[in-house]
Amino acid sequence: MKNTFGSSVSITLYGESHGPSVGVILDGIAPGIEVDEEFIAHQLTLRRPADDLSTGRQEPDPFVIESGVYRGKTTGTPLCIRIPNTSQHSDDYAFYGKARPGHADYTAYAKYHAFEDPRGGGHFSGRITAGLVAAGAIALSALKKKGILIGTHLSRCAGVDDRAFGDLKRDIEALSDKVFPVLDSASEDAMKSAILSAREDRDSVGGILETAVLGLPAGVGEPWFDTVEGVLSHLLFSIPAVKGVEFGDGFGFADLRGSVANDPFRMEQGSVVTSKNSNGGINGGITNGMPLLFRCVIKPTPSIFREQQTVDFTDGTDCDFTLSGRHDPCIAHRARVVVDSVVALGLCDLLAQRYGTDWLS
Amino acid sequence: MKNTFGSSVSITLYGESHGPSVGVILDGIAPGIEVDEEFIAHQLTLRRPADDLSTGRQEPDPFVIESGVYRGKTTGTPLCIRIPNTSQHSDDYAFYGKARPGHADYTAYAKYHAFEDPRGGGHFSGRITAGLVAAGAIALSALKKKGILIGTHLSRCAGVDDRAFGDLKRDIEALSDKVFPVLDSASEDAMKSAILSAREDRDSVGGILETAVLGLPAGVGEPWFDTVEGVLSHLLFSIPAVKGVEFGDGFGFADLRGSVANDPFRMEQGSVVTSKNSNGGINGGITNGMPLLFRCVIKPTPSIFREQQTVDFTDGTDCDFTLSGRHDPCIAHRARVVVDSVVALGLCDLLAQRYGTDWLS
Amino acid sequence: MKNTFGSSVSITLYGESHGPSVGVILDGIAPGIEVDEEFIAHQLTLRRPADDLSTGRQEPDPFVIESGVYRGKTTGTPLCIRIPNTSQHSDDYAFYGKARPGHADYTAYAKYHAFEDPRGGGHFSGRITAGLVAAGAIALSALKKKGILIGTHLSRCAGVDDRAFGDLKRDIEALSDKVFPVLDSASEDAMKSAILSAREDRDSVGGILETAVLGLPAGVGEPWFDTVEGVLSHLLFSIPAVKGVEFGDGFGFADLRGSVANDPFRMEQGSVVTSKNSNGGINGGITNGMPLLFRCVIKPTPSIFREQQTVDFTDGTDCDFTLSGRHDPCIAHRARVVVDSVVALGLCDLLAQRYGTDWLS
Amino acid sequence: MKNTFGSSVSITLYGESHGPSVGVILDGIAPGIEVDEEFIAHQLTLRRPADDLSTGRQEPDPFVIESGVYRGKTTGTPLCIRIPNTSQHSDDYAFYGKARPGHADYTAYAKYHAFEDPRGGGHFSGRITAGLVAAGAIALSALKKKGILIGTHLSRCAGVDDRAFGDLKRDIEALSDKVFPVLDSASEDAMKSAILSAREDRDSVGGILETAVLGLPAGVGEPWFDTVEGVLSHLLFSIPAVKGVEFGDGFGFADLRGSVANDPFRMEQGSVVTSKNSNGGINGGITNGMPLLFRCVIKPTPSIFREQQTVDFTDGTDCDFTLSGRHDPCIAHRARVVVDSVVALGLCDLLAQRYGTDWLS
Repeated sequence: MKNTFGSSVSITLYGESHGPSVGVILDGIAPGIEVDEEFIAHQLTLRRPADDLSTGRQEPDPFVIESGVYRGKTTGTPLCIRIPNTSQHSDDYAFYGKARPGHADYTAYAKYHAFEDPRGGGHFSGRITAGLVAAGAIALSALKKKGILIGTHLSRCAGVDDRAFGDLKRDIEALSDKVFPVLDSASEDAMKSAILSAREDRDSVGGILETAVLGLPAGVGEPWFDTVEGVLSHLLFSIPAVKGVEFGDGFGFADLRGSVANDPFRMEQGSVVTSKNSNGGINGGITNGMPLLFRCVIKPTPSIFREQQTVDFTDGTDCDFTLSGRHDPCIAHRARVVVDSVVALGLCDLLAQRYGTDWLS
Repeated sequence: MKNTFGSSVSITLYGESHGPSVGVILDGIAPGIEVDEEFIAHQLTLRRPADDLSTGRQEPDPFVIESGVYRGKTTGTPLCIRIPNTSQHSDDYAFYGKARPGHADYTAYAKYHAFEDPRGGGHFSGRITAGLVAAGAIALSALKKKGILIGTHLSRCAGVDDRAFGDLKRDIEALSDKVFPVLDSASEDAMKSAILSAREDRDSVGGILETAVLGLPAGVGEPWFDTVEGVLSHLLFSIPAVKGVEFGDGFGFADLRGSVANDPFRMEQGSVVTSKNSNGGINGGITNGMPLLFRCVIKPTPSIFREQQTVDFTDGTDCDFTLSGRHDPCIAHRARVVVDSVVALGLCDLLAQRYGTDWLS
Repeated sequence: MKNTFGSSVSITLYGESHGPSVGVILDGIAPGIEVDEEFIAHQLTLRRPADDLSTGRQEPDPFVIESGVYRGKTTGTPLCIRIPNTSQHSDDYAFYGKARPGHADYTAYAKYHAFEDPRGGGHFSGRITAGLVAAGAIALSALKKKGILIGTHLSRCAGVDDRAFGDLKRDIEALSDKVFPVLDSASEDAMKSAILSAREDRDSVGGILETAVLGLPAGVGEPWFDTVEGVLSHLLFSIPAVKGVEFGDGFGFADLRGSVANDPFRMEQGSVVTSKNSNGGINGGITNGMPLLFRCVIKPTPSIFREQQTVDFTDGTDCDFTLSGRHDPCIAHRARVVVDSVVALGLCDLLAQRYGTDWLS
Repeated sequence: MKNTFGSSVSITLYGESHGPSVGVILDGIAPGIEVDEEFIAHQLTLRRPADDLSTGRQEPDPFVIESGVYRGKTTGTPLCIRIPNTSQHSDDYAFYGKARPGHADYTAYAKYHAFEDPRGGGHFSGRITAGLVAAGAIALSALKKKGILIGTHLSRCAGVDDRAFGDLKRDIEALSDKVFPVLDSASEDAMKSAILSAREDRDSVGGILETAVLGLPAGVGEPWFDTVEGVLSHLLFSIPAVKGVEFGDGFGFADLRGSVANDPFRMEQGSVVTSKNSNGGINGGITNGMPLLFRCVIKPTPSIFREQQTVDFTDGTDCDFTLSGRHDPCIAHRARVVVDSVVALGLCDLLAQRYGTDWLS
């Protein structure tokens, strides 16, 4: 299957940036979960904030729950959310054939033989993540009721670091309402000014998102293939611009010795815990009950306003290309809510496989 | 599905370290592919070399092709390879309940409720990767016939760097026979001495593997979920000790600007190419025809010979633990052939989905 | 996965009878297939004809293609079709708790714990098949362009037989526009009068649908599990009221001897054919190039207007139940287009697995 | 995936009739299930009885559990059973190119382009069902511990009927040890003499198997695609020679009216039951708590000893064919244990999806 992911709880995406709508079908979700439409709207707003960093098109992202909710609760049958596309500026993209560097224009052509919808990136547009965020909002709510909390901060952006995670529960709660998800407000100022400086240079910046998940039971995940790392990375790499994923100490492990990398176990109030968490809460692909910790890198948005060299793939010639339209100089902070969403959806799937359909309700 | 991966071409793993055998079923592979048993044996030897770095059990890894091959060629029906376990020192592991830090002992217990086979790590043992390597050998051969070459080197280990990839074709060919997969022989000496020094300290080291794939057509992969990055990372994170995966410039993207991160397109001998390859041959989740480039990090093997603090999860008490038996101080160089194998298997799946069952034959 | 089916070409259904809409996502379909909206509308009308046999709600079934079509052709990305629900008479169904015999009211309750949407059968409504028909129309068109024709007639209904298939190509073409799909117009009259007689008795009738598929290449299907029979029956049993599926001589095989049941092969104009077709075009789960032949039985619609004994499952009491509202006395003729649709979708999947993504375009 | 079936509990088959072995990997089965090797052996013997009706090769079917069982219980990790092929008379099949009518010789060639292993039917051989039976034995035992009983009788064979199911529990228990699975011993005599008479005529016969499943909870199955009927039929049609599947009254529904076809609900000892069971325990694709009832038809084995017309597909010529070797005149009674097995495996999957991984343990 192509645009569907998940075994017990699955998501299917559809839509193009300038078609009638984008949307998602969330299937296998337990019946009886409260659906908080305000929270869905809130999450969609985090994905597309009307803030000082955004110059792009500002749609309010209204959505329609087409199925799967009855009297405010999930029915257990497929839950379809449709998000109409309201402002479509197709003229911004009247350059078919000129491959925008770093974008999927050329690969879409190679795959779909010029039948792809190129307007605004078509099915490759970041706008498709709205479906992930809407479905993810329901998953996040359901997990929260079971004591499972997910939070992501922008740990590095444009060369500026945020402070590290401290008290995870408090940090996750503090992040939930922040449009610009950093733990330290000084970092926010420095990052934003670096982002705005890139925008002045008609350029863009990237960043690193760090995520923590609290409250997962031990014993979730599979030893081969459907390891927690495998399932979550598969989902995370679907987010446009994610080019790397690391768990726990990640690439830092390369320079550690085993005596430092291993997390000693100890008993604490009758539970097995580890004294530190270099392995990010996962041993052998399976949760150990400690917080799940991982990071992913967001490359700088390829939409920059400088002249770039490229080709016209319709006639096989070299050419120049200069972007017009409205594009953000940074999407790393906006990707945060997409990360939270796909992680919630992936964990719902793993938990439903382990504990059955009704566990989340 | 749990120990099965893939849609058109799939692999299913079975086995425990100290059971009768480990093995694999490779299904959906095209009929008519030549099966080179010597190459399978060669690849299995790379996974378990009898070299100066290995103190572990030295099994010759004989294997039996149980099905799917007739007159030296694949039949197109499931190809089962069984690798009998010949030397089983179960006494080495008579410590059930004491969770080895960094290992899956505790998480296996949490998941399987003490029914898991704990001997030698059971189903979590690195030995299970022998099945991946055996199936991968067939996939690698088939891809090579289609001009698709895969090579991995140990780009960093124990604090020592190998030189970067240069002429990819030549480097990949040079790597294919190396037991210790580095491009620069000076790196080999320095890495090995750092590894042996760790062993003297009863400790272990990690490393980074860097992979290149040459000859992939443009247009392979899916925009959402089954992106090339998503599929390959899902597989790579199945390899025990892999804790991070990055494509192209990976985490380095965090500090780049878009104008540097974007890869300009240009025509070269009638083909679309990029002037550089920061995106690792993938745009929008789909191959662009340039070499596929990625790296994964191997954490230091958790099997160290120092006293470690842990718990006995059978009675919920703190305790000490000191490993006995035979264990390597580094597995990063041995993981190389597993990386090549899962990448070959994942690509066969994506290619078969795109071009049909018979494309590889 | 639950409401998704298919590997290379997949369909995902959503919707409730009285929610905002029902719909479908068709994914993995080749790019470049012409989308004939008139044909989709035509097929939807066959599913819900405004004819002399229908007393039910008469919606015109307008539909919106939300994604996956650009300039009249498939893009190759997910194709979502939404069919708004326009006439919703929820009061007809204000009997929650009284399980209609033969319906899914009680089993929905057992599965979804009273969170299911009960209005009009909710997600169990036959209306959900509109999504199958809309997606199926695209698959049928694409197959037709490749010379693969699918046709179904009502071979028996209310005790009346239609004539057997004769010249398959001509019969299939004749059926395509018929609202009441019989080959012999005398059968139509007799069946209709038997159906109307059942309606006068406030009762309903069932029937048998017989399907032929012409033009399939030999070699499609898998030896185990994904046999042609297995895949098609899986889909056919999704159609509400289908309770049996048989291929070729089907249950008639029980009384045959092998010498009669076997289909001798012979050469005809350079092709391998069989002299007769008791096996329905399938040997060992795989097409042999002869017409695919199968039948499925449609049970009488359980919606009858007689007083029936049942229970109120909300309080565990016996009670009586008398249906009100509008319901057809026969749905067998309407199920025909759903059969054609799921068969087309299932075959597209098998063909795309075999010949690759682009084969249908 | 091709030779793999199932979502939470899955089975993967491998093997050829005359290769080293046939076998199965059962994955996702709960940890802690007792594995009764005698029962596995017993079931394998039912599949290949050394009785008065069998003239075929008589292998004792020894088997090796290669993985997934520790101290007599399932570990929860993949359980591989290998069944070596001990008596291989390849000379019986030295007729490559001559397509045996009713067999998969030609379709295998069309699919695998002459790379298939033709010896003894290769991967299409009924012998592959030994893997299903071995895995099914574990599933049957596990279900039995949860009060779920499965039994199948030969309800019709060679024109002779067995008596109908009566007291289901008693009938299922009586069937479990019978090599020739009929409820009425008079039927056994009549069927056997009809079978032997066919054998004298160098011919073969078919039959109908009827299955009952007791003790399933209400609420298992999905409304679309993964209906109980869809999942079980998908599996049943994998059994060679099955050409039809019907649930409850099946094809008999064609001539019923709704007032007769509907099963009225009533309360009985606090539970919802139906007064009769025309729907075979399934409403809307989901179990209603009543016994699951279905039938499948087994076509006469195509292996007959009469001269038959066929083609040599290697050179495209018409030719005659006369079978030699050892083949049974009836396999319907032997297919019984395969039916029980796949039904048990399919139900384990549906139950594990609903109630979680550990439910069966």
